[in-house]
Amino acid sequence: MNGPGKGGAGAPDTGTPRVLDSLDAFRAWWAERRAACRLRVTEVGLTALDQWHLDPASGNLRHASGRFFTVEGLQVQAAGCPLTSQPVINQPEIGMLGILVREIDGVPHCLMQAKTEPGNVNTLQLSPTVQATRSNYTQVHRGRGTPYLEYFTGRTRGEVLADVLQSEQGAWFWRKRNRNMVVKVPGDVPDDVPGAANFRWLPLPLLHRLLAVDNLVNMDARTVLACMLFLRPRADAARSDAAGPDALDRSFAATSRGALHTMREVLSWFTEAKTWCDWSARLVPLSAVDRWTVGGDRITDDEGRDFSILGFRVEAAGREVARWSQPLLRPHGRGLAILLVRPVNGVLHVLLEARAEYGLLDLVEMGPSCQLRPGADRSAVGEPFLREPDFGLRIRQAAGAVRYDATLSEEGGRFHHALTRYRIVEVGADFPVEVPKSYCWLTVSQVMRLLRHGHYLNVEARTLLACLSGSARPPAPPPS
Amino acid sequence: MNGPGKGGAGAPDTGTPRVLDSLDAFRAWWAERRAACRLRVTEVGLTALDQWHLDPASGNLRHASGRFFTVEGLQVQAAGCPLTSQPVINQPEIGMLGILVREIDGVPHCLMQAKTEPGNVNTLQLSPTVQATRSNYTQVHRGRGTPYLEYFTGRTRGEVLADVLQSEQGAWFWRKRNRNMVVKVPGDVPDDVPGAANFRWLPLPLLHRLLAVDNLVNMDARTVLACMLFLRPRADAARSDAAGPDALDRSFAATSRGALHTMREVLSWFTEAKTWCDWSARLVPLSAVDRWTVGGDRITDDEGRDFSILGFRVEAAGREVARWSQPLLRPHGRGLAILLVRPVNGVLHVLLEARAEYGLLDLVEMGPSCQLRPGADRSAVGEPFLREPDFGLRIRQAAGAVRYDATLSEEGGRFHHALTRYRIVEVGADFPVEVPKSYCWLTVSQVMRLLRHGHYLNVEARTLLACLSGSARPPAPPPS
Repeated sequence: MNGPGKGGAGAPDTGTPRVLDSLDAFRAWWAERRAACRLRVTEVGLTALDQWHLDPASGNLRHASGRFFTVEGLQVQAAGCPLTSQPVINQPEIGMLGILVREIDGVPHCLMQAKTEPGNVNTLQLSPTVQATRSNYTQVHRGRGTPYLEYFTGRTRGEVLADVLQSEQGAWFWRKRNRNMVVKVPGDVPDDVPGAANFRWLPLPLLHRLLAVDNLVNMDARTVLACMLFLRPRADAARSDAAGPDALDRSFAATSRGALHTMREVLSWFTEAKTWCDWSARLVPLSAVDRWTVGGDRITDDEGRDFSILGFRVEAAGREVARWSQPLLRPHGRGLAILLVRPVNGVLHVLLEARAEYGLLDLVEMGPSCQLRPGADRSAVGEPFLREPDFGLRIRQAAGAVRYDATLSEEGGRFHHALTRYRIVEVGADFPVEVPKSYCWLTVSQVMRLLRHGHYLNVEARTLLACLSGSARPPAPPPS
Repeated sequence: MNGPGKGGAGAPDTGTPRVLDSLDAFRAWWAERRAACRLRVTEVGLTALDQWHLDPASGNLRHASGRFFTVEGLQVQAAGCPLTSQPVINQPEIGMLGILVREIDGVPHCLMQAKTEPGNVNTLQLSPTVQATRSNYTQVHRGRGTPYLEYFTGRTRGEVLADVLQSEQGAWFWRKRNRNMVVKVPGDVPDDVPGAANFRWLPLPLLHRLLAVDNLVNMDARTVLACMLFLRPRADAARSDAAGPDALDRSFAATSRGALHTMREVLSWFTEAKTWCDWSARLVPLSAVDRWTVGGDRITDDEGRDFSILGFRVEAAGREVARWSQPLLRPHGRGLAILLVRPVNGVLHVLLEARAEYGLLDLVEMGPSCQLRPGADRSAVGEPFLREPDFGLRIRQAAGAVRYDATLSEEGGRFHHALTRYRIVEVGADFPVEVPKSYCWLTVSQVMRLLRHGHYLNVEARTLLACLSGSARPPAPPPS
C-alpha cells in the first residue's frame, strides 16, 4: 500500500490527513489522541444545568433555545390494557452521520475521527468523519463549523454510495433517526480543518479488526459501517462495485440464490409483524408519566430497573464549544444483543427478530436474534414484546463458534455509560431453520438490500452486521 | 377466454363468483348492483351521533368503545414560527386492503367487490376483494365475518405477490397506513359468502379501462392496483413473472437502464428532502386547536377553505351491520393531482415531487408532479410546502397529450364527497429533465421497485400510477 497522501503516525500534523496502515500505527495515534483529550464530566443534577429547565406546565425537560432535544413522556395505549408511560428523549431533528471513503491501491479507506463524548465510559472513541446534529451544522450553538460536512451536503460533494435515514434506540428515543451517508472521494481531502489531528484514513480491513475492541468504535460509526456492507475490503470486489451505477443492483438481484426465503416472503413476514401491534404510542407531558419520579436532581423509575435522566457539566477541549451542560440518560445495567448465524444451502444466514419498540417510528424493526435491554434480564417483567421466551432462552444458550464477543458503547452524546454486550455465534445444522413466527432467517445479501432503506434494521442489529464483516478474523488486541 | 368458473352477468347468483369478460357484462352487473344497493345517509350533526362523543377534557371526538378512530388535534412546531394546528383523524390500527388474483388463459383476473360507503358521492364503488379495518376483522362491532379474508391472513392463504404498508392522506390522517396485499390463487374461490352477488372476477385490462370512469374504482382498489403494477395484462408477461420467485427481482435490476438517475441517486435525493423539514408534528387535544370552531353539530375551520367534520346516520343493507352513525371529513372543494410523463432515452419517466405533509409518518413522500389539496387553488396561503410556485404553475399549464383525465373519490368510509381530479399529461422534449431540487424524474420501473416498500409513494401518486397502467387505451364510456 503506497497510496498518495499516506504518512506514518509520527508525521507532522500538517498537510493532508494521514493514512494509518497498520494496527501499530493506529495504536500510536490513538495513544497520542488519548493523551491530548481533555474532557471533564461532572454530575451536577438537573436543576444545576445551564439553560436547561423543567417546564412548570408540562414537566418536560428542555433547553431554553427550544433546540437540541427534550425529555418528555411516552404514553402507550394497548388494546384492553391500562395506559403505561415512561420518559423519552425527543429529538425530531435529523442529524448527519457520514463516512468519507477513498480507495488506495484498490483498498477502501475510511476517514475516521477521534471524538470525545461526555457519556462515553472512556471519553474518546472512534467516530465517523462527520457526526453532527442539525443544530451543529446549522450553527445554533454558535460553535465552529463541522469539518468535511461540505463533502456530504455541499455542491462539491463526492459520489454518494449510501444515503439513508436509520433509526436509533426505540426504548429511549422518540422516533429518532439520523441520516447515514457514505461518500466516496477520488483522492485525499485537505486537513486545514479544526482538530485536524483527530482525523485519519483507516483501511477498511483494519477498521473491521478494531470493531472487536471493547468500547472503541462508537455507535454512530457502526451504523454507517453497516450501511456500507457492500464495500468489500478486497480490491477486486471494490472495483467491480465501481464498474457502473447499477453493478450493485445486479449483485443485489443475484443474491437471493440459496436464500431460505425470497425477498417477497421476507417483506410479507415483516409487514405481517407490524399488524400484530395492537398498541399505539404518543408523546404526553412528562408530568403525566406514572411510576417515575421527577426530582430536582434526576428523573428515575421507581423500581430502579430502567434508566435515569441525570444532569452533567462538561468541560472540553477540541470540541465545538469549550463548556456546556446537558442531561444524559443512564441505563440501570448492561444490554445484551446476540446474532445467530448459520450456513444454509451454502449461504450464510442471520437470524433476525421482528421487534416492536414503543419509540420506533414504524412500530417494528428487525432486531438481533436476541436483544435484552439493560436490566431486562434482572427484571420480573423483562422485555414487553418477547413473544417466545423459550425460544429466546434457546438463542441465548445456543452452542456454536463464537465469531464475535465484545462490549460496545451506545451514543455517548445522549447516554451515560450505556454498554451493550454484542455476541455473534455461528450455530450448526442442529439449530432449526423453522423458527417461531416473530423470527426469520435472512441472507447477509438480503440484509444489505434492506439497509438501503430505513425502518428495517434496528440499531443493535446494524451494529452486529457491522461486526460480522470483520468477525472471520481473530479479534485484535486492545490498541493501548 | 374460456377459463373455469366463468359465467355471464345473468347467471344465477349461486355457484362460484363469476367472471365478467367484457365491458357490457360489467355494465349489466353494475346496473343490477346499483339497483340492489340501499344506503341512506343523513347528516345529523356530531352531537346526534350514537356512541360518539366529544370528550369533555380533551375535546377529542371518539367512539365509546375506544376503537375505530378519533378526531384530535395536530400541532406543528416549525423552526422560528408560531405553532399551528388543525384537526386530524387518528386511526392507529392497520387495516387490510387486499385483491385476490388468478390467471384465466394467461390473463390476470382480480376479484373485485361492489361496495357502498357512506361518504361516496355515488354510494357504490368498485372495491378490493377485502377492505377491512382491524376492528372489522377482529369483530369489534360484532358484524359478520369479512369474506375471503382467510386468503390473505389464514393458513390457507395463497401466493403473496405484494404485501406492504402504504400511507393515506397526510393532510387529513395522522400517520395512517393500510396493509396493501395482492394474493394469487390457483383457481376459483367459493362464493358461499355473505353478499356473494357483490363479488366478480374482472380481467386486468378491463379493470384498467374502468379506472378512466369518474368515481367508479375506489381509492382502496387504486392503491392496491398500484402495488401490482408488475402484473402485466398480457399473458406472456404474466407467465414470465410466475417463472420463479426472483424473476421479479431480476426484472427490477434490469430496469435502471435508460433511467435519468440511478436508484442510489433517487434514494439520496429522497433522503435529502426529509432533511429539509425543520418542523415536527404531534397530537394535541382537539380543544387546543386554534382557528377551528368545535360546535355542537360540526368541527370546521373559521376561514372555510379546509374541511369540516360532520356527523351522519347511515342505514344500509348488505353491509356488516345494518345501521350506524359516524363522523366524516368533508373537504371544502375538489383536489387536483397531475402526473407529467415523458419519454427520456426511450424510457417512460414520471415526474414526482418530494412532498411534505404534516400527517405523514415519515415527513415526506413522493407525490404527483403537482398536487393541490381541495381549496388550495382558491386559498391565499395555498400549499404549505410548495417550494417552487412558478414551476408548479408550469406543471399545471404544461402542454402535451392528455393520457388520463378523470375525477375520482377518496376513501368513502372516512371522507364525505372528497373528489380529486386526476390528470396524466405526456410532455415532450421541450419540458426540461433538469428540474428544481424538490422534483425528480423516475422511470416507471424504478417506481415499481419503490412500491415494494412503504413511505415512498403517497396515495395520490399511487392512484396516478394505477391509472397510468391503462392510460394508453382510450377512456371507456361510463358503465351506465
